[in-house]
Amino acid sequence: MTVLTVTPNPALDVTYRVQHLTPYATNRVTAVTHRAGGKGVNVARVLHALGVPVVAAGLAGGPAGSRIRELLAEGDIGAAFSATDAETRRTVAVVDGVDATLFNEPGPSVFGGEWAAFVDRYADLVEQASCVVLAGSLPPGVPVDGYAGLVATARSNGVPVVLDTAGDALRAGIDAGPDVVKPNLTELSVSGRATGQPDTDKVRDAARNMRVAGAGAVVVSRGPYGLLTETRAGTFAARTQAPTTGNPTGAGDAVVAAIARGLVTGTAWPELLRDAAALGAATVHAPVAGEFDADAYARYLRTVTVEELP
Amino acid sequence: MTVLTVTPNPALDVTYRVQHLTPYATNRVTAVTHRAGGKGVNVARVLHALGVPVVAAGLAGGPAGSRIRELLAEGDIGAAFSATDAETRRTVAVVDGVDATLFNEPGPSVFGGEWAAFVDRYADLVEQASCVVLAGSLPPGVPVDGYAGLVATARSNGVPVVLDTAGDALRAGIDAGPDVVKPNLTELSVSGRATGQPDTDKVRDAARNMRVAGAGAVVVSRGPYGLLTETRAGTFAARTQAPTTGNPTGAGDAVVAAIARGLVTGTAWPELLRDAAALGAATVHAPVAGEFDADAYARYLRTVTVEELP
Repeated sequence: MTVLTVTPNPALDVTYRVQHLTPYATNRVTAVTHRAGGKGVNVARVLHALGVPVVAAGLAGGPAGSRIRELLAEGDIGAAFSATDAETRRTVAVVDGVDATLFNEPGPSVFGGEWAAFVDRYADLVEQASCVVLAGSLPPGVPVDGYAGLVATARSNGVPVVLDTAGDALRAGIDAGPDVVKPNLTELSVSGRATGQPDTDKVRDAARNMRVAGAGAVVVSRGPYGLLTETRAGTFAARTQAPTTGNPTGAGDAVVAAIARGLVTGTAWPELLRDAAALGAATVHAPVAGEFDADAYARYLRTVTVEELP
Repeated sequence: MTVLTVTPNPALDVTYRVQHLTPYATNRVTAVTHRAGGKGVNVARVLHALGVPVVAAGLAGGPAGSRIRELLAEGDIGAAFSATDAETRRTVAVVDGVDATLFNEPGPSVFGGEWAAFVDRYADLVEQASCVVLAGSLPPGVPVDGYAGLVATARSNGVPVVLDTAGDALRAGIDAGPDVVKPNLTELSVSGRATGQPDTDKVRDAARNMRVAGAGAVVVSRGPYGLLTETRAGTFAARTQAPTTGNPTGAGDAVVAAIARGLVTGTAWPELLRDAAALGAATVHAPVAGEFDADAYARYLRTVTVEELP
């Protein structure tokens, strides 16, 4: 019962610690840390921490790609990245006493043969998997329906698929019928945050449209207002007692990890959603993506409320 | 007639282009460029552009070290870097429409055997050299009198040495009798900039002290106020007609390149100083270290004034 996560556009996440970020000056970096990054890699890290067997797959190249493989090996996380000629992107997070400032390199271009080689390898990996997670952006050079092909392969093997991406890659992927998609409000084109709690009717309408287009279930992450899911079994909303605040980076990845685990174990939606909301909220209390606060997770599991909407 | 430059603590200089640097937010990097960096490497690049045969030596390790070797090879600059286990540092310059914000990683630690291996190789390289340039900081793990040993080796081979470093490494290096040192005002502990033009008497006193301590000649870079040199042949000051303003990064490296060329060709001090001041000023007009504006160089060569001080 292994979960296979796919990250076509991973990143080497570099953190620079500085005393205080001073724009237009020389900042002395006091410490440098590296982490393997990208949505699917973060999902894999959360699953590994939960004790769920996982293989992180995708495309990686150059020294940054090698470092990602090394870091996953150091973390005892199974990895199956196909090689690209171009170097994998880096992100640099400059952290001072105030907050983090992020610099995201553009993704490297993938050549046709490289994507085809990955698709072949993926077909073999799917046969060993109990669930597939496809997560993050597609790098330049991968066809926009790249995820649709991966969804189709999983379905023809009878393996459930969770798709977490955005824009055209999400729309094209939904056509192939993934079991679950996990859009956020931006991906649903429903405004939230700035205007307070998003309109539930609008969220439900947008999620239903994704089901009509092909998604088996739609789990909408509503930021501090918890999760809402449209499924064949009904519509459910999960929320913490108070809106969660903190570092939202990686909360969506933790939600996806909980969904994947729930699909593997056959957990019913209300219970799965409680788990996903608790794990997502617990991530907001951790300083970095792909980690969660275990005490906060246990506490949220007791206090998250799940209601079925009529 | 090859100049050997030594950079014990080189850097892979990475430039991130962003629209506008926004602290505490996510900044999308639109372009990434890499350059081989570090003072001695910049000196080598200037000499190569001037048509002077040069070999850039030093210590380099890990993927950043490999990239430095690659970049020098792409620029047709001879390189002889000894391997270190630790990865060479990077600098990240975030450039927007306003200016550059620099993040300097700390230097990696060098192990005793690695420095000894470099010292051995250096002894061979010196035999092929007409002039040696020792430039920049010593990385952690290299003894503070590391440069002193390299100076002694060059002297015993009859090869002139220019030393451009700071602090204890400079003080220890001067004891071994380098032909030329090139301190700036900070290294002389003479204030400038904020208080306008530095006091010439104080600069001369501090430079004379360095000659007494062992330096053959002292060339002081006074920022926008040009160069002042204390030599056996007298004291000379070189300046442009108006204080130069612009990007001062790398101006000192260009001055060192001109000094090295002058030592090789046996140019007399007043003429050498004119050349060094012109090349340094022309660098201020170039956007990046280790490059200079050829037109500005030609113009400054005609207009720099050199006077002998009593």
